[in-house]
Amino acid sequence: MSSTSIPDLHGALAALVGEAHVYIDAADKARYETGARYGNGRAALVVRPGSTAEVAAIVRHCVQSGVPLIAQGANTGLVAASTPDESGSQVVLSLERLRGEIAVDRANRTATVGAGVTLQELNDKLAEHGLCFPIDLGANPSLGGMIATNTGGSRLIRYGDVRHNLLGVEVVLADPPGQVVDLMSGLRKNNTGYDLKQLFVGVGGAGGVITRAVVQVHPLPRQTATALIVPTGQEAILDLLIALEGEFGDFLTAYEGMSRATVQSVIDHVPGVTNPFAPDPIPDYCLLVELAATSSREVLGVDLQSALNDFLERQFDVLVANAVLDGGPDLWKIRHSISESIRHQGKLIAFDIAVPRSSMVAFRHTALQLLERDFPWLRLFDFGHWADGGTHFNIVWPHDASIAYDPEQVERLRVAIYDLVVREFGGSFSAEHGVGPYNERFYHRYASPETQALAGRVQQAVDPRGALGQVWYGPPPTR
Amino acid sequence: MSSTSIPDLHGALAALVGEAHVYIDAADKARYETGARYGNGRAALVVRPGSTAEVAAIVRHCVQSGVPLIAQGANTGLVAASTPDESGSQVVLSLERLRGEIAVDRANRTATVGAGVTLQELNDKLAEHGLCFPIDLGANPSLGGMIATNTGGSRLIRYGDVRHNLLGVEVVLADPPGQVVDLMSGLRKNNTGYDLKQLFVGVGGAGGVITRAVVQVHPLPRQTATALIVPTGQEAILDLLIALEGEFGDFLTAYEGMSRATVQSVIDHVPGVTNPFAPDPIPDYCLLVELAATSSREVLGVDLQSALNDFLERQFDVLVANAVLDGGPDLWKIRHSISESIRHQGKLIAFDIAVPRSSMVAFRHTALQLLERDFPWLRLFDFGHWADGGTHFNIVWPHDASIAYDPEQVERLRVAIYDLVVREFGGSFSAEHGVGPYNERFYHRYASPETQALAGRVQQAVDPRGALGQVWYGPPPTR
Repeated sequence: MSSTSIPDLHGALAALVGEAHVYIDAADKARYETGARYGNGRAALVVRPGSTAEVAAIVRHCVQSGVPLIAQGANTGLVAASTPDESGSQVVLSLERLRGEIAVDRANRTATVGAGVTLQELNDKLAEHGLCFPIDLGANPSLGGMIATNTGGSRLIRYGDVRHNLLGVEVVLADPPGQVVDLMSGLRKNNTGYDLKQLFVGVGGAGGVITRAVVQVHPLPRQTATALIVPTGQEAILDLLIALEGEFGDFLTAYEGMSRATVQSVIDHVPGVTNPFAPDPIPDYCLLVELAATSSREVLGVDLQSALNDFLERQFDVLVANAVLDGGPDLWKIRHSISESIRHQGKLIAFDIAVPRSSMVAFRHTALQLLERDFPWLRLFDFGHWADGGTHFNIVWPHDASIAYDPEQVERLRVAIYDLVVREFGGSFSAEHGVGPYNERFYHRYASPETQALAGRVQQAVDPRGALGQVWYGPPPTR
Repeated sequence: MSSTSIPDLHGALAALVGEAHVYIDAADKARYETGARYGNGRAALVVRPGSTAEVAAIVRHCVQSGVPLIAQGANTGLVAASTPDESGSQVVLSLERLRGEIAVDRANRTATVGAGVTLQELNDKLAEHGLCFPIDLGANPSLGGMIATNTGGSRLIRYGDVRHNLLGVEVVLADPPGQVVDLMSGLRKNNTGYDLKQLFVGVGGAGGVITRAVVQVHPLPRQTATALIVPTGQEAILDLLIALEGEFGDFLTAYEGMSRATVQSVIDHVPGVTNPFAPDPIPDYCLLVELAATSSREVLGVDLQSALNDFLERQFDVLVANAVLDGGPDLWKIRHSISESIRHQGKLIAFDIAVPRSSMVAFRHTALQLLERDFPWLRLFDFGHWADGGTHFNIVWPHDASIAYDPEQVERLRVAIYDLVVREFGGSFSAEHGVGPYNERFYHRYASPETQALAGRVQQAVDPRGALGQVWYGPPPTR
């Protein structure tokens, strides 16, 4: 517990980073206090260091004085991990000024970035070199936040998640307070003991603050092909995925499923989007397929879209009932407008879940039955990354529902769906978004006692005071 | 320390796994006592459990009695991590009977395997489904050993190493002794706290025994293309790699460099291999390029070899001075015969190192100067995975050298080369083989004090007694 007064703390932090980079006024602090989906608290102060040395000095000072710190990147996370609580005693450590030069090593196919650099800035810089960092998301997070969350996205099946593309990090430890550990390797092959950077990936800031990173980057695709496919039935979805991976495994970047309600919602609420299947009605379920090739059609001698169209023609009446070919960016517009359109339907109860690909059909079937039986007034607008097993199982409490919105029913729904995902289908209650304060109760419900015991020992070893990060991954204290 | 007599221990272990699976006779133990390259000791006993429960019982018994255990897979490791020391007091825990059924999940594109299953067995099984586990090595290790070593191999640039393809593990902990932790996820997206399996990847058995795993597998390529290329100079090697990745980035599986001495050695000592460039002489340096495509030429409408040949023709006199096209398996025979041929040259001093790709030309140049200046009687037969930065920098003390073989000079050479790799070029002293007892002294030389301190805290948290694994990754005890 801190016994430092806010004015004293303000003075101490201003001495470390300069007065201009400590925010104390409510108006200045506001945008650091509210999360993108959950989290809405009050910060004692916001401090914005401009270098690793300043981060280290802040961590040292605050940990030694018992001042709680909340690390924050671009504040786009969805589990309340980057915003302060209601106490007004926490300091937000904003990493947005950790930028410096984005150093692109063309021959090594890597980029060295400050934690505050955003995904878009990195990709703009990489595009000058014909390269990209292909983590495809609906937000523009900072690289530090992406590492802390291990973001995945729509094209994971081709490129992997952040963990798969992370070669090195620099981290400021909570213990010893402010200790900088340089793990900034630019190596793809390096087996020299514990891969310590893994301790800071996907744990929402526990134990350390990431200040810099080396990431592997990829050649920009030179041609893409898309199609919106109607499978001959739910069972055909997986067979079609297997067939696509068998014949186009080098190119498959996305295989995104959307239900009729989801597509209808976009058409109803997003200007300019019409039924792509017209004059046919919107099908029960459809799949957006994307292939991408580094090789141009000149080098390869083939037009990827034609090859995909030929494949779909061969599958017609076998696995494919209908298809819109070569829709280009317009097809992605439907997919990218889903979240926006759903807001018009009512209050969103979002589930960011995953099951093994082989269980996706069975899971969806069982979950639909559960909803119909136990929550008939709710509506489902789901879409799934079938190629990686992730599903955004978006349930909406309609504005015009017969039953008034009730948080207790929502909690009952959450537990029912997560129990199904985790206990019946071996899945995950948080595929992409992480744990964070919002999901902490589900972590303790679903992680096995052995897992929690081991995780707690590791977290305790890295950060004995529990000074950094908002989630305790060990077993909950017994009463 | 154990106070159990060998006969008592024999009885206790036989009660756990059956008399037939405890070896005490010298002849039975022999093949478990000597490593593939280093390590040649004596085991008190060899015990061969047939299930996870038996592994757990053995670990519990031995840890509680203070009996030191050495986990061993197929014993193909190259750093003495799977063989006992000279004391005769250690028990080899062979995992070769942990087999069971190889369960292939076609739709999930995963396989569930026992730790004792070998790479070849897995690939034979996967081939029935048109799939493969594409870690390409010169040995046939067990899956458990591959995880403990985080093996990489020749095709890492396309498929990643074991860490990148590992979805889940089951592990038996040293603490609590014999505790089984089930992390057998078949999920590609799962961000629910610490990714605990990482604690057991690439650490040579520290803290736990891997008993089962879920790995991601890949579609078998349907066409490949190869060429043996002479670059216009050392500087052209990286430009050619950049050009190949830019135009064939989806397909590039190998880009292996070989020096003239290395190719000459193969021709001189391996029956049936002739100069592929004849009537031209062997060039100073050449590169074996391999492309592989999941798509057949029917689906893609293109023959990958023709596309590669066209590319090389366009690069002729720019980056490419000469090329042997479409040599198929014969070109790989040169590459795969290198290690065998070198044995004829003298005593091998092997370096398994890596530097960033962008530093490979400069590193090689500087290392050649160092050898010429300080070790002129030695000969170099190097070959490098240029696409991933790894180099097998094989130095030979020739049989007919003017100076007699001298271990002190070898140690001086090791330190000189590793200092160059790690301190001058930001590289790794063990790219693929791990640390193990053989490299432990170099770990403590090159890992930073901050890295060793953090690693030691983690290892201590996982295994407070230091009961499993032969390397201590923390700081060496001070005197």
